[in-house]
Amino acid sequence: MNFAQQMKEDTALVEAWLHEAFRERETRADLYDAMRYSLLAGGKRLRPVLMLETCRLCGGDPEQILPFACAIEMLHTYSLIHDDLPSMDNDDLRRGRPTNHKVYGEATAILAGDALLTAAFETMLESGCDLPAQRVLDAAACLGRAAGARGMVGGQALDMAGEGHALALSEVEELQRLKTGALISAACEMGCILAGGSPEERKAVVKYAQKLGLAFQIRDDMLDVEGDAATLGKPIGSDAANEKTTFVTLKGLEQCHKLVEQLTAEAERALDGFAQPEFLRWLARTLVGRNN
Amino acid sequence: MNFAQQMKEDTALVEAWLHEAFRERETRADLYDAMRYSLLAGGKRLRPVLMLETCRLCGGDPEQILPFACAIEMLHTYSLIHDDLPSMDNDDLRRGRPTNHKVYGEATAILAGDALLTAAFETMLESGCDLPAQRVLDAAACLGRAAGARGMVGGQALDMAGEGHALALSEVEELQRLKTGALISAACEMGCILAGGSPEERKAVVKYAQKLGLAFQIRDDMLDVEGDAATLGKPIGSDAANEKTTFVTLKGLEQCHKLVEQLTAEAERALDGFAQPEFLRWLARTLVGRNN
Repeated sequence: MNFAQQMKEDTALVEAWLHEAFRERETRADLYDAMRYSLLAGGKRLRPVLMLETCRLCGGDPEQILPFACAIEMLHTYSLIHDDLPSMDNDDLRRGRPTNHKVYGEATAILAGDALLTAAFETMLESGCDLPAQRVLDAAACLGRAAGARGMVGGQALDMAGEGHALALSEVEELQRLKTGALISAACEMGCILAGGSPEERKAVVKYAQKLGLAFQIRDDMLDVEGDAATLGKPIGSDAANEKTTFVTLKGLEQCHKLVEQLTAEAERALDGFAQPEFLRWLARTLVGRNN
Repeated sequence: MNFAQQMKEDTALVEAWLHEAFRERETRADLYDAMRYSLLAGGKRLRPVLMLETCRLCGGDPEQILPFACAIEMLHTYSLIHDDLPSMDNDDLRRGRPTNHKVYGEATAILAGDALLTAAFETMLESGCDLPAQRVLDAAACLGRAAGARGMVGGQALDMAGEGHALALSEVEELQRLKTGALISAACEMGCILAGGSPEERKAVVKYAQKLGLAFQIRDDMLDVEGDAATLGKPIGSDAANEKTTFVTLKGLEQCHKLVEQLTAEAERALDGFAQPEFLRWLARTLVGRNN
């Protein structure tokens, strides 16, 4: 099986699990519709794939940890819904479709985000998988650390506060380490925890994820300048419109290209100690070349 | 020790734990300030007290489960911050002070809510208490169920959707069972789970909590009509202003008085099988007479 095929199969597992979990129709006004609208809108499913494959890398069974992979996607989706809100980035388009609040209104979009964030933890804690309870606790705690004020939400707060101000490189790095990096790191770390990986393996996959996460974010900043709106599914130039300091405004496109290359090589090297690091290396390399 | 004194001591334990946990000052723009502003603003701490005392009732050590009691207060606080937002209930005053978004702006208020919700789970999962991992998982899962789309957030969605419409009694009951009742039930159920209570004990404390929760909500609706704004710390008449159907609009004040009395008696009786139900019975009775 080639890597693209493996990626497809991972993604299909995640899609199927999410569709099944959110199939049931309950009567909570349009809350479930709003949750489904954003959660089942496709997307790269990068974080779930990273978790499943890191689990496999560390000797675990990816299918057993599907609820955790889907939980991190719920958490990621909630963050997109809230980031798009009028009082935040005020974005109208996401993944080629109107943003959640454009369709369901602001109140329901806030609640859909709250409900997805809660569902992420609920899903992990009730997963009923046959893993040891302590391992489930450790993995869920890892996501909690990455998602909260010390992680992703903290990063978003720094991002909002930084709008209209010139930030130093170290500030942009810190902001992105929290806002994007923390969750990508958690995806890999959780995969390792759930597989019962060793402390050394955990350290190695976190290093891989940190390098990958930074490369991913720099590439994102580049695409906001040189990308194509139709391919991206969202308008380009939104960073400039929101007066955000990015890696591109600080270092220019050419330097960014080099930095992404360098970080990707470092990510690949972080997996030197593993028997079968090929897929995750391919994934890192693929993300450098992506156009969306 | 009399009951009021015991309540005071429980509340003091919770306050001290919360202040200690949120003492550290980090640089995430004003995110931590906004979290502290609402979390450390006093309040009845009803849910933590219910959890601590249900734990004691079932033979557990209340001090050991303080992180869980504080977690449910974080979760309750996040729900207040988001409920007060302009796109939700648009309230300016809470506990006698300007609401979170009035002080910190909408974006930070949304993020402070998100961060408190996440912190609730983080706190439970990382509590490092000496309880069995499976018991911690069960308690945290219980809170997840109560807080999400099947519980509190679902109730808030129904509440928003119901504004301006005439609701039937069964709809108002369902709405309140989710919006207010679910978290009050979870407080008691978690206390029992963490104490290692029996299935029968769990059933009994949930029954107590459900009766209490409904009585509490009806009393709340009554106070919004006959209460005093200064004592309540928020304006009265907000339900009418938001065109909400309440127990008072459906049944009138006198019927509501009787209903509250009846429910309180049922809550008290639910604890018949316990050796020391006195405090929780006193608490139920006290809440009926409250003016804030």
